[in-house]
Amino acid sequence: MKKILVIHGPNLDLLGKREVEIYGKCTIDDINKEIQKLAASIGFECEIFQSNHEGDIVARIGSTTADGILINPAAYTHTSVAIRDAFSAKNIPAVEIHLSNIYAREEFRHKSLIAPVVTGQISGFGKASYALGLRALAEIINEKR
Amino acid sequence: MKKILVIHGPNLDLLGKREVEIYGKCTIDDINKEIQKLAASIGFECEIFQSNHEGDIVARIGSTTADGILINPAAYTHTSVAIRDAFSAKNIPAVEIHLSNIYAREEFRHKSLIAPVVTGQISGFGKASYALGLRALAEIINEKR
Amino acid sequence: MKKILVIHGPNLDLLGKREVEIYGKCTIDDINKEIQKLAASIGFECEIFQSNHEGDIVARIGSTTADGILINPAAYTHTSVAIRDAFSAKNIPAVEIHLSNIYAREEFRHKSLIAPVVTGQISGFGKASYALGLRALAEIINEKR
Amino acid sequence: MKKILVIHGPNLDLLGKREVEIYGKCTIDDINKEIQKLAASIGFECEIFQSNHEGDIVARIGSTTADGILINPAAYTHTSVAIRDAFSAKNIPAVEIHLSNIYAREEFRHKSLIAPVVTGQISGFGKASYALGLRALAEIINEKR
Amino acid sequence: MKKILVIHGPNLDLLGKREVEIYGKCTIDDINKEIQKLAASIGFECEIFQSNHEGDIVARIGSTTADGILINPAAYTHTSVAIRDAFSAKNIPAVEIHLSNIYAREEFRHKSLIAPVVTGQISGFGKASYALGLRALAEIINEKR
Amino acid sequence: MKKILVIHGPNLDLLGKREVEIYGKCTIDDINKEIQKLAASIGFECEIFQSNHEGDIVARIGSTTADGILINPAAYTHTSVAIRDAFSAKNIPAVEIHLSNIYAREEFRHKSLIAPVVTGQISGFGKASYALGLRALAEIINEKR
Amino acid sequence: MKKILVIHGPNLDLLGKREVEIYGKCTIDDINKEIQKLAASIGFECEIFQSNHEGDIVARIGSTTADGILINPAAYTHTSVAIRDAFSAKNIPAVEIHLSNIYAREEFRHKSLIAPVVTGQISGFGKASYALGLRALAEIINEKR
Amino acid sequence: MKKILVIHGPNLDLLGKREVEIYGKCTIDDINKEIQKLAASIGFECEIFQSNHEGDIVARIGSTTADGILINPAAYTHTSVAIRDAFSAKNIPAVEIHLSNIYAREEFRHKSLIAPVVTGQISGFGKASYALGLRALAEIINEKR
Amino acid sequence: MKKILVIHGPNLDLLGKREVEIYGKCTIDDINKEIQKLAASIGFECEIFQSNHEGDIVARIGSTTADGILINPAAYTHTSVAIRDAFSAKNIPAVEIHLSNIYAREEFRHKSLIAPVVTGQISGFGKASYALGLRALAEIINEKR
Amino acid sequence: MKKILVIHGPNLDLLGKREVEIYGKCTIDDINKEIQKLAASIGFECEIFQSNHEGDIVARIGSTTADGILINPAAYTHTSVAIRDAFSAKNIPAVEIHLSNIYAREEFRHKSLIAPVVTGQISGFGKASYALGLRALAEIINEKR
Amino acid sequence: MKKILVIHGPNLDLLGKREVEIYGKCTIDDINKEIQKLAASIGFECEIFQSNHEGDIVARIGSTTADGILINPAAYTHTSVAIRDAFSAKNIPAVEIHLSNIYAREEFRHKSLIAPVVTGQISGFGKASYALGLRALAEIINEKR
Amino acid sequence: MKKILVIHGPNLDLLGKREVEIYGKCTIDDINKEIQKLAASIGFECEIFQSNHEGDIVARIGSTTADGILINPAAYTHTSVAIRDAFSAKNIPAVEIHLSNIYAREEFRHKSLIAPVVTGQISGFGKASYALGLRALAEIINEKR
Repeated sequence: MKKILVIHGPNLDLLGKREVEIYGKCTIDDINKEIQKLAASIGFECEIFQSNHEGDIVARIGSTTADGILINPAAYTHTSVAIRDAFSAKNIPAVEIHLSNIYAREEFRHKSLIAPVVTGQISGFGKASYALGLRALAEIINEKR
Repeated sequence: MKKILVIHGPNLDLLGKREVEIYGKCTIDDINKEIQKLAASIGFECEIFQSNHEGDIVARIGSTTADGILINPAAYTHTSVAIRDAFSAKNIPAVEIHLSNIYAREEFRHKSLIAPVVTGQISGFGKASYALGLRALAEIINEKR
Repeated sequence: MKKILVIHGPNLDLLGKREVEIYGKCTIDDINKEIQKLAASIGFECEIFQSNHEGDIVARIGSTTADGILINPAAYTHTSVAIRDAFSAKNIPAVEIHLSNIYAREEFRHKSLIAPVVTGQISGFGKASYALGLRALAEIINEKR
Repeated sequence: MKKILVIHGPNLDLLGKREVEIYGKCTIDDINKEIQKLAASIGFECEIFQSNHEGDIVARIGSTTADGILINPAAYTHTSVAIRDAFSAKNIPAVEIHLSNIYAREEFRHKSLIAPVVTGQISGFGKASYALGLRALAEIINEKR
Repeated sequence: MKKILVIHGPNLDLLGKREVEIYGKCTIDDINKEIQKLAASIGFECEIFQSNHEGDIVARIGSTTADGILINPAAYTHTSVAIRDAFSAKNIPAVEIHLSNIYAREEFRHKSLIAPVVTGQISGFGKASYALGLRALAEIINEKR
Repeated sequence: MKKILVIHGPNLDLLGKREVEIYGKCTIDDINKEIQKLAASIGFECEIFQSNHEGDIVARIGSTTADGILINPAAYTHTSVAIRDAFSAKNIPAVEIHLSNIYAREEFRHKSLIAPVVTGQISGFGKASYALGLRALAEIINEKR
Repeated sequence: MKKILVIHGPNLDLLGKREVEIYGKCTIDDINKEIQKLAASIGFECEIFQSNHEGDIVARIGSTTADGILINPAAYTHTSVAIRDAFSAKNIPAVEIHLSNIYAREEFRHKSLIAPVVTGQISGFGKASYALGLRALAEIINEKR
Repeated sequence: MKKILVIHGPNLDLLGKREVEIYGKCTIDDINKEIQKLAASIGFECEIFQSNHEGDIVARIGSTTADGILINPAAYTHTSVAIRDAFSAKNIPAVEIHLSNIYAREEFRHKSLIAPVVTGQISGFGKASYALGLRALAEIINEKR
Repeated sequence: MKKILVIHGPNLDLLGKREVEIYGKCTIDDINKEIQKLAASIGFECEIFQSNHEGDIVARIGSTTADGILINPAAYTHTSVAIRDAFSAKNIPAVEIHLSNIYAREEFRHKSLIAPVVTGQISGFGKASYALGLRALAEIINEKR
Repeated sequence: MKKILVIHGPNLDLLGKREVEIYGKCTIDDINKEIQKLAASIGFECEIFQSNHEGDIVARIGSTTADGILINPAAYTHTSVAIRDAFSAKNIPAVEIHLSNIYAREEFRHKSLIAPVVTGQISGFGKASYALGLRALAEIINEKR
Repeated sequence: MKKILVIHGPNLDLLGKREVEIYGKCTIDDINKEIQKLAASIGFECEIFQSNHEGDIVARIGSTTADGILINPAAYTHTSVAIRDAFSAKNIPAVEIHLSNIYAREEFRHKSLIAPVVTGQISGFGKASYALGLRALAEIINEKR
Repeated sequence: MKKILVIHGPNLDLLGKREVEIYGKCTIDDINKEIQKLAASIGFECEIFQSNHEGDIVARIGSTTADGILINPAAYTHTSVAIRDAFSAKNIPAVEIHLSNIYAREEFRHKSLIAPVVTGQISGFGKASYALGLRALAEIINEKR
């Protein structure tokens, strides 16, 4: 069975408890359950990881044995060359997602350091961004078989 | 039955005949068939429109009776304030998609004038971008019922 | 009798039906009636034209036999070198107007490509911008007699 | 009777004596007479003030009991945050006007610090800019009654 | 017999009637006759097209059966990603020409969106730019035989 | 007894009468009373000065015999090289304060010309900014004894 | 009893041992003692935390039960969107302080990513910045009771 | 006898008392005596004026009956469009001088708003800048006779 | 007989021996022969000069007795104000050519310091750029007779 | 015996397993062996440390007892003010090295935040960059004895 | 007897023969005679040098035995780091002069690479700039005795 | 025996005689002796060349028969596209070195036009930069055998 690594970036542990007008009311646990369910339904195993540490995310990308990575890099989207380099080095299918529409927020959120080195980016659909990203990633992995 | 308007921007009539290393081999007719099929399967009617004219796209957005719009603005993504204003004026659910990963191409393609005024953006999954966008849009429309 | 060409740019056909907090509730027909009435009262004939097409506006400026042009270029204010060049080529009295105060909106609306090649610009007075522009234009045309 | 405060910014006391190719031959006294006449004809009292001092203009805006302000900020258009803040603080109807078309002159004159905090801006019609501005302001004040 | 498509961009229908100090007195018909004559003399068939519409130019590039394209994109030189993308998609020999020296005019005319995707650019020789461009294009097409 | 000069910049005479959502309801007289009281309680004499004139503020800094200066430069924060130069020339302890958080407002308010030449800056605490600034300044003056 | 969380950012453990010409001779322990003493004297409990890890600071902000946060973000002031987002999410009173006057140092230190999302900023008073920040924060917390 | 107006800008009254490492030890009175002496020796009458007020300098330029102006605009060099406009309006010979080499100081001092509208600029020779400027101005005035 | 000066800039002596994928295989001698032949055929005498020295090129432009100059400034296109000034001073017909399409290469090659002061520019046609430039220049010289 | 601390930044644990076309095939263990051998041969003890965590690198620099530091900051080169500040604080000999030529890669890699505060930088020699850096550092340490 | 080296930069050999509307009609020989005469009259020996070669100017600055240098760097003002470095290295009194007012010309002429490393700059007085510069330089050299 | 060409750029003939606080006391002859000795010890012949002329350096790179080039481009690092193009054309191993740490100096010295087209860059080690560069270059040449 193919495996997908899901990475939640910094502050996402607070989801549903913070800024609900931007991110919605659903918690990270709610999202994780939906991800696991959807992954299973389309034949994928799913490993989920949240960290506030840039270094931990870098390390996890470097060491994973998954067939693809779904990442919501949150704040590190705009500041982490280290995570970008980890994706370049790993070179497996990867999809970047965002809960909010980053292009409708502050100027500095319009620039993603990660996007140029992953397959694609999905932004602005709330928790549905995860489901869309998972489907997109699954398709890419399946096409490579 | 709810209706979705799908808009293909300039040069997309050449799809599958041009730059296959960037956009893939599938033609606009192939994509349209898949869109119609997927739309029907999730209970939506689908109206499809391609134009090379900024003004035609503006007019179509202004006059449509659809419940939501799925647009691949192509080149107009980066240059059309008129299409942006049409979306602001219409104010119905809308999703922007791109076949290629625009963030992995020339600098001027990294800036979308449309993204800040639609619900979300999906970029980089080839023809699958349309299917993902359609699902995302359907979900937003359904939530509003 | 001297003639004035009034040009309404893209999306202005939706006026009064869209973003009323920015543009007010009055429709383009209401405005046109007021323009015709004011023009007649100050001794001018008035020809009115709306288009969503940059090319149509370029062509109309190029072919008009009017003595002056009143234009609300809307979105094309910020993107159309072609309309700018049409004004440079035609070289008759011209006034640019805006319903909203473009300097109180997004940064990209602060730059007009048209303003440097017309006589003057009026911005921010709602439908009154048209009346002010008409008066200004009439005066310039009259002075040239 | 409603009252309008007219403010002429720096160097405008030299009007008609300087750069006539840009500003025309008419003096500030000529303009003031026309303003008074037009104001009276549309039912407004008019108080006129010229100063070369940024601080005096700030003070006058702060202390005025007028119902609206018509200002030609001249050079302070581009450099005075203090005058901008005075308008923000006063928060009464205000119109910014310019004799010359500031968008057809040096780059640094294209940016107005005042425009974003007043109702609207009129630029490029010579002394007629004052008359147009007065009409525009009168209408805004009348609408508020 | 090999065929060349000649495209005249927006406002060029006014040639010889407008800004003669920049563009010269010769009309578009004069130029077209010279182009046809020169083309015939060097063994090429020639199809000529003028449009003020970005979308029409995009469509014509996409549908042409010519062996090469000579274009004076005029104002669209600086604003049209859609025409650029049409050239990228078509991928046949193409030459960009300008009547005036665009590098001796306003700053915004120094940047061509088209130049990077065509074979070469010729700028500043008045109507002779067309003849030079035709010769250049003919040579490229002949070399490919 | 050591003496502190307190300078209130332009428009601060309107305090409590203007934009209360940004600056609070307290007037400049209220603030001055609190400053005098606090100064006395920590053993300092206090001289207070408000001006809308850049030149007056420059002159006062140049001529003061105080041991330190507490300044809220308001709008001149962002535009006055003259006040900056006055501080450089005077070279006595000085503290810059702001009622509002200038970093949470318009982009042009994020840059202070004064900050680099004074001891420190305090921003965002409403009228408490004055008290904090006074304490900070007193401590610096006392340390120098 | 109300509680305040004090966060010292990266390298502040070296305080008093490094660059004494910029930061002074006092160590982090000296500062902590003064903070504890002052906090107690004004009726607050105080929890102090130093970390060189962006992720640890993010986590601590997210999990704290304090009534307000006093932070010296040091180097992360200029680079951490993650800490900014943690403050936005937590949404409790917060004050940013700096030992040195960041506006008198390298250009890149003039921009704080944190300042726009906290209550206020205090910069340049050496160890006194902590005391001033504590007083400011206490006042804000007390006002909210 | 021809007359020269000498204008000293803001803070120059402090000369010789401030920043002697940049501006030297000589006071404004010392300089004025030397100017008067040199002027007399080359046959010119000399009127000297110092002000910290931008508006006063604007007014003095506007009202002077001198044949030429020698100005050290100090801080207003970099911020005053009003003084620039006064020179444009007056249109008599004028020379800008600086005690220090403004190109060897902070970046913002490298840009003079005044220089483009006066005859020439002299920068960096301490009090000798005044003498050099006086000689230069005298020569221009003499050539015009 | 009219004379043309042909100038080859730095590194062009290596032509045909270097970067053949950009510049083609033909040597500078091959090009010179073709230039001489074409010049003769259209009735012009031709003087050819290659230099790696900016100063030599400046001197040659200054001292030439030719009726026009054809220049491939190579690297100096982007860095030499001195060569630009030489053309401004000489003020005879001049054409700038490039072998490669400079607009399809590195960003810094998109800016020519020479283009604004010569008649026109031809870029991207390999050795044919010289022939096109020669024809263009000959026509300009002939028109002036 | 003098001691050198060698720091490998983020992702360098993947060396030889990733992007071999940029970084070569040799692993971090291979490099470490060569470093140890070279260090011993020139009389230095060597302590080697790899981390993906910015905070760990900051801490290690702060706490080390080595006589000099050789660092390949990898991605943190371009984003870490914290590591820069650690070097400023520590103030011992330090050399920055890079495997690849960072000036031949993406624009954002051309700027090092570390370089201005260390002794020197070596970039582009593959694993030889470490050996060169070690020699350079050893020489600096030896000179200080 | 003290000696001054006068350096004329590129194209200045054409003086009086070129662009007389900018530089005046006087030739370099006329200027040199005046310089020699003035130098002698104030007790200085004078060595004059003109070159179109950046390298020659660098070499001459490096090898001169003069007590001061008067330079009109012409085009190299804006492009030559090498001449700047030569002045830094030589470290003797130096004055930069310009015939035209460089601040009233193209944007790129507003930036001098030389000015920050010489004593001062004189710009805009035609041939009188040389005389003023010579006097300024003489005074500096005399003061150092 | 393999041969290395060593190029010293402008002003380096003054080494040891100028700015010793930046470049050290050692002369170019001292450095050349060390280079020759080191080269011999590692089996290379060494040809050394100093020039203040950009054109001479371009020519020498173009004509050399060496197996690799070690260059200290000095001032030309930041301004010479011609030297960059010479390296691109020659396409043999090349190393760029700097005596001082160019990243710790003026902003304009942070950008090298040469670095992107050579193998690597070494900056900041004084005369040791030459030895390090020589070793680096020798290794690259040896690897190619």
